[in-house]
Amino acid sequence: MNILYKSASERGDLWADLLAQLAPDASFRQWPDIGDSASIDYLVAWQPPEEILQQFPNLKVLFSVGAGADQFDYSRLPPELPVVRMIEPGLTQGMVEYVTFAVLGLHRNMPRYLHQQRQQLWLGHGSKPAAHCRVGVMGVGELGEAALAPLVQLGFDCAGWSRSAKAIPGVSSFVGDAELGAFLARSDILICLLPLTPATEGILNASLFSQLPPGASLVQVGRGKHLHHQHLLDALESGQLLAAVIDVSSPEPLPQDHPFWTHPAIWLTPHIASQTQPESAVRALLENIRRFERGETMIGLVDRSRGY
Amino acid sequence: MNILYKSASERGDLWADLLAQLAPDASFRQWPDIGDSASIDYLVAWQPPEEILQQFPNLKVLFSVGAGADQFDYSRLPPELPVVRMIEPGLTQGMVEYVTFAVLGLHRNMPRYLHQQRQQLWLGHGSKPAAHCRVGVMGVGELGEAALAPLVQLGFDCAGWSRSAKAIPGVSSFVGDAELGAFLARSDILICLLPLTPATEGILNASLFSQLPPGASLVQVGRGKHLHHQHLLDALESGQLLAAVIDVSSPEPLPQDHPFWTHPAIWLTPHIASQTQPESAVRALLENIRRFERGETMIGLVDRSRGY
Repeated sequence: MNILYKSASERGDLWADLLAQLAPDASFRQWPDIGDSASIDYLVAWQPPEEILQQFPNLKVLFSVGAGADQFDYSRLPPELPVVRMIEPGLTQGMVEYVTFAVLGLHRNMPRYLHQQRQQLWLGHGSKPAAHCRVGVMGVGELGEAALAPLVQLGFDCAGWSRSAKAIPGVSSFVGDAELGAFLARSDILICLLPLTPATEGILNASLFSQLPPGASLVQVGRGKHLHHQHLLDALESGQLLAAVIDVSSPEPLPQDHPFWTHPAIWLTPHIASQTQPESAVRALLENIRRFERGETMIGLVDRSRGY
Repeated sequence: MNILYKSASERGDLWADLLAQLAPDASFRQWPDIGDSASIDYLVAWQPPEEILQQFPNLKVLFSVGAGADQFDYSRLPPELPVVRMIEPGLTQGMVEYVTFAVLGLHRNMPRYLHQQRQQLWLGHGSKPAAHCRVGVMGVGELGEAALAPLVQLGFDCAGWSRSAKAIPGVSSFVGDAELGAFLARSDILICLLPLTPATEGILNASLFSQLPPGASLVQVGRGKHLHHQHLLDALESGQLLAAVIDVSSPEPLPQDHPFWTHPAIWLTPHIASQTQPESAVRALLENIRRFERGETMIGLVDRSRGY
């Protein structure tokens, strides 16, 4: 079995070590040291090279090195090539940590307190019990469901919005376009964990923000193109939104003069909410290769008709 | 039963409403409207008035309105007067939220990322799994034990340090002076939740910091006098400590020119980690009054010999 890795090289060495240990029979190559390109079975990449079919005529599966598969240009991929998103516990745990951090920070007015620190202002504000703070997760897939668990445990009043109903203890389930308004109206803290598809592009816009309770907050950990930047700035300006924690943007990085950098009510991180952890990712990759070779369904296989 | 409340007046009205509802027979008075001072049975206060015995000759119990009772000058309190710290679920939950927020923030390099935001720098750093991050709680009382629960759930490698051994699932117990060094040597994130006593005053100093792993972080939610400010600044300067989240200081508020305000590796909040929630605090007070009247031990009764 020949695996080609095309992503951050400093992590590639760790992938190589782990594969040597866990699958000593596999041959692991790192871009651009391809070797005999006709022998490549599996490609692990964030962005595949162009002309993938010509270059790797015997490629069996394209694995995304990250949680998303929206970065691929499907019109340039062979239609029958299976594409697989990365689903691995390290990636999930990272998102759980980030979302828990962001929700607690917004719940406890931390953007306001850290802004006050810069003004050298010592001034406390009241806080309400978590049970009175309504958290709503848009997109209840692998990551969304995992992110909800500690929030339920911490006592937040939790709901999820998804295409199909989800039965998660302690979480109200809202389904589809018909129930979006009701879901938004009860979300004091809104978390975007949607996949990026034509249906969700630009979904975080003025119309959506206006349906949240006044003074709501946003955690944007979906994809950059979900969010209309100017609409967020307008909602913060009007007070409809109080604060936002943003990990993804379009473009990345943001331009130097972008207003998010200096906005006192925005916390900005450089797309680090969830990082693939080689230790667990290599295991997930090998499990999927095993499944593929036995003709079983791979975990995270992309359904191109729905886009994720 | 006559209860006198002497604390923040905006919360006093909420206490009055709740008491009227839960104990309609009680008479509730707010400082300075004392009425007949000889009739006062119970005083709920952060700071009692001076000459408490002369002013309230029939006072039965002094209740602290907060989690601590170190603010009282015991030399001026009648020796037989029972003094009770506030233990109520709202106060505990607030501390759990704050500590979880702070630990996740330090674990995920958030002080560094928010500092980078101010520099308009988009630069990711690696993160390690929570299981490889060792969290240590100094002071495993009501609040410490509660704060450990979500950290264990999130996968952190947790330990506690206390005067007597504690059996908490998923938490290594270190006891007394003899085991302090071993506890510190394995604490990547150190949380101070100690009571303030002569034995703990100034405990967060250069000697303690030097026993932590290089690059450790601090969450200071104990009492202001636990921390030696200049020693913290020195440890941050040398790199022995990477960052600190500080909720309490001495004095409070900090002076305008204090270096904590502007330090890029310090997050400062104005003593808001844990706030008494009237809804649950009034219930805790009434339960303690019931216990006192039946001759049972009150929850949070201060042992003056150990100071908490």
